[in-house]
Amino acid sequence: MFRKLMTLEEAQRTIQTYFRPAFVGEEEVVLLEAYNRVLNIDVVSALDIPPFNRSTMDGYAVRAEDTFGADENQPANLKVTGSVNIGEKPTVTVAKGEAVEIVTGAPIPEGADAVVMIEDTEREDDELHVFVAVNANENVMKKGSDIKKGATILKKGQVLSSSEIGVLAALGLTTAKVIRIPMIAVLSTGGEVTDPGKPLPEGKIYDINAFSISTAVIESGGKPIYFGAVPDDKAALTKALQTAVASADMVITSGGVSVGPRDYTPQIVDSLGKPGVVINGIAVKPGKPTTLGFVGDKPVFSLPGHPTSALLIYYLLARPMVQRLAGKPVSGMKMVKAFAGARMFSAKGRRTFVMVNLEFDTECRLIAQPVESGASGAITTLAKADGFVEIAENEQFVDANQEVAVALLKSAKGSV
Amino acid sequence: MFRKLMTLEEAQRTIQTYFRPAFVGEEEVVLLEAYNRVLNIDVVSALDIPPFNRSTMDGYAVRAEDTFGADENQPANLKVTGSVNIGEKPTVTVAKGEAVEIVTGAPIPEGADAVVMIEDTEREDDELHVFVAVNANENVMKKGSDIKKGATILKKGQVLSSSEIGVLAALGLTTAKVIRIPMIAVLSTGGEVTDPGKPLPEGKIYDINAFSISTAVIESGGKPIYFGAVPDDKAALTKALQTAVASADMVITSGGVSVGPRDYTPQIVDSLGKPGVVINGIAVKPGKPTTLGFVGDKPVFSLPGHPTSALLIYYLLARPMVQRLAGKPVSGMKMVKAFAGARMFSAKGRRTFVMVNLEFDTECRLIAQPVESGASGAITTLAKADGFVEIAENEQFVDANQEVAVALLKSAKGSV
Repeated sequence: MFRKLMTLEEAQRTIQTYFRPAFVGEEEVVLLEAYNRVLNIDVVSALDIPPFNRSTMDGYAVRAEDTFGADENQPANLKVTGSVNIGEKPTVTVAKGEAVEIVTGAPIPEGADAVVMIEDTEREDDELHVFVAVNANENVMKKGSDIKKGATILKKGQVLSSSEIGVLAALGLTTAKVIRIPMIAVLSTGGEVTDPGKPLPEGKIYDINAFSISTAVIESGGKPIYFGAVPDDKAALTKALQTAVASADMVITSGGVSVGPRDYTPQIVDSLGKPGVVINGIAVKPGKPTTLGFVGDKPVFSLPGHPTSALLIYYLLARPMVQRLAGKPVSGMKMVKAFAGARMFSAKGRRTFVMVNLEFDTECRLIAQPVESGASGAITTLAKADGFVEIAENEQFVDANQEVAVALLKSAKGSV
Repeated sequence: MFRKLMTLEEAQRTIQTYFRPAFVGEEEVVLLEAYNRVLNIDVVSALDIPPFNRSTMDGYAVRAEDTFGADENQPANLKVTGSVNIGEKPTVTVAKGEAVEIVTGAPIPEGADAVVMIEDTEREDDELHVFVAVNANENVMKKGSDIKKGATILKKGQVLSSSEIGVLAALGLTTAKVIRIPMIAVLSTGGEVTDPGKPLPEGKIYDINAFSISTAVIESGGKPIYFGAVPDDKAALTKALQTAVASADMVITSGGVSVGPRDYTPQIVDSLGKPGVVINGIAVKPGKPTTLGFVGDKPVFSLPGHPTSALLIYYLLARPMVQRLAGKPVSGMKMVKAFAGARMFSAKGRRTFVMVNLEFDTECRLIAQPVESGASGAITTLAKADGFVEIAENEQFVDANQEVAVALLKSAKGSV
């Protein structure tokens, strides 16, 4: 039975059409655990910063008008009546003809409106000679001049990096209201896979995808709910998918390393609710058996079974969905330029992705060496593939030494 | 008193000379929490993968010699004696003249040495006509052909991304032995700073750096130990530094927003142990008051007090130290190309870093707009600075519209 497969772009448009990311909720976290989270509120400053007029220099707080006309030859002569320490409320005031010792960052005492730098003065006991004139507000940082009370400093939707967390602390806050981390159920199907950590029954292999995809989910800003390998019968898979849809914000399944005739997932998704399956196979290699359905607004994304294919399709199509649920900006794949280490062929009429390993050659050129792919080396491929080269449907091959763009699967190699 | 300041490169060489990152220890973590951790052992496979000869096709397991000479006109005629399911130990064997139904991924039953694809056969009841000859091992993935038992699959020092965690699961493992996360004590000094979350005493401002630097430590692969703002007296600071050195793998301090005359940190570090202070001021702007000392092999890094300056120096000099303690590859700063939005001046004879905000203009050119810096806008600068432009000591300025490389302070903007 012939069925025309969607192109990758048609699949992306289908996701645009059907995917309405639900708001997953808000939680309050302490600042030291807020890294990489997404603000769910506009942050308004409850205080003026600085909260008082501050000196920006070491010197003397004075009344500016007392220094008018002063110069090297005709210093203004003032009387030092005390000092202001940093971090303390001034206990002195400055009257006409007086000066008060002050350090950078300390509050300007009442009566004063400027600071004379220590370099511009000479002092004998409590007598101060000022050799320059200062204007009102000179060397003074006015209350609220950095941030005004009531000003919006950070916006809803901002991702919290070290800078933003510093800003929140500056406002006196110790917590932030952020978007809850979306829960992503991750489960593996296929009769031959079994959970690691138990003895391996004869005829089975250990499940890879529940672990690699869960980790990729963490990297994307989601929290995986580990369902592991689900037994290969329709009732068990139906139950697992029902539980997953009920408990998570999104469900990601993957086939076993080999997808046999018994992949029930699409028909179960169709049976669980509308609109059901909206993508059923894509014209890409690898990744053809990719499907996506929705049960209400809950996406159920089914990745191919081969581990590198599963990661590839995750990064291309599923990661943007997890990022949108997390409220994060959708990031493109990190790309590096390299030279093809060998000719790489495309699959006729399908967008082809060739897994490559990146190494520098003796001339320090970055070489993208195709990794032996296919069923014959699932683990070897997974261990070696740093990224992939994309070949368009209408291209036959990429030639050796041709410059290629490599999309990186491993952030650790991002620095190559 | 004149003291020649180190250049940034001299400071980097000094770190190379004195910093011998201690091994911080090993711990065992479950795979689902192993993302971004660093392997502390070579991982050797305890099993052959696949653990049995597997079929790579749907079809029939046969003895290859029974098909020799078969073609479209002269099929080999075999008797179907049973079937092998995926994920199950075969209960049948294949004798001369026999065939057994098999699916992709299922184990090859005893006696058989090849698989004939279903497309190359015709079946009537238990009689099978095979229209091609297959060689021994055709359509069979041999036991151990992906990974041999005893082979080293992952190496000590590898950072665990989704791929490597998938590989560990494939080997049947549920945990990984990784390098412990280095503990980094983070404390703020300066008489004017106080911890957020409490009412603000008059004359004080809230501490920023303990939070922004702690977050940057997390981003670098370290675990911050929050000491907060330490009171501005020598005894209290000595005690805090002693505790920090004793309990952490590295200590990072920062001055208050303004560094007054009372910065005791270097002399306390000198008093705590050898070799003491090895960097005391750098000819960069901002960042001049940077110091680094060692108490034994424990680094005590003192950042400037201004929040963006502290982050800048952290990224330039301290982050590589945290990454090395974590066993991670030292990453350079992420750079983007942009056009200067205004002329930016350098400070005479000092390497100058100008904080910039990145925005696209109406022609979709990425513009690096200098952010008003200095004491007058600590929080504004922190909130707005996406990165910085470096100006060499011998350059006077970077002109408006000149192409510049911007080092990114916020990973979230990495996708611009």
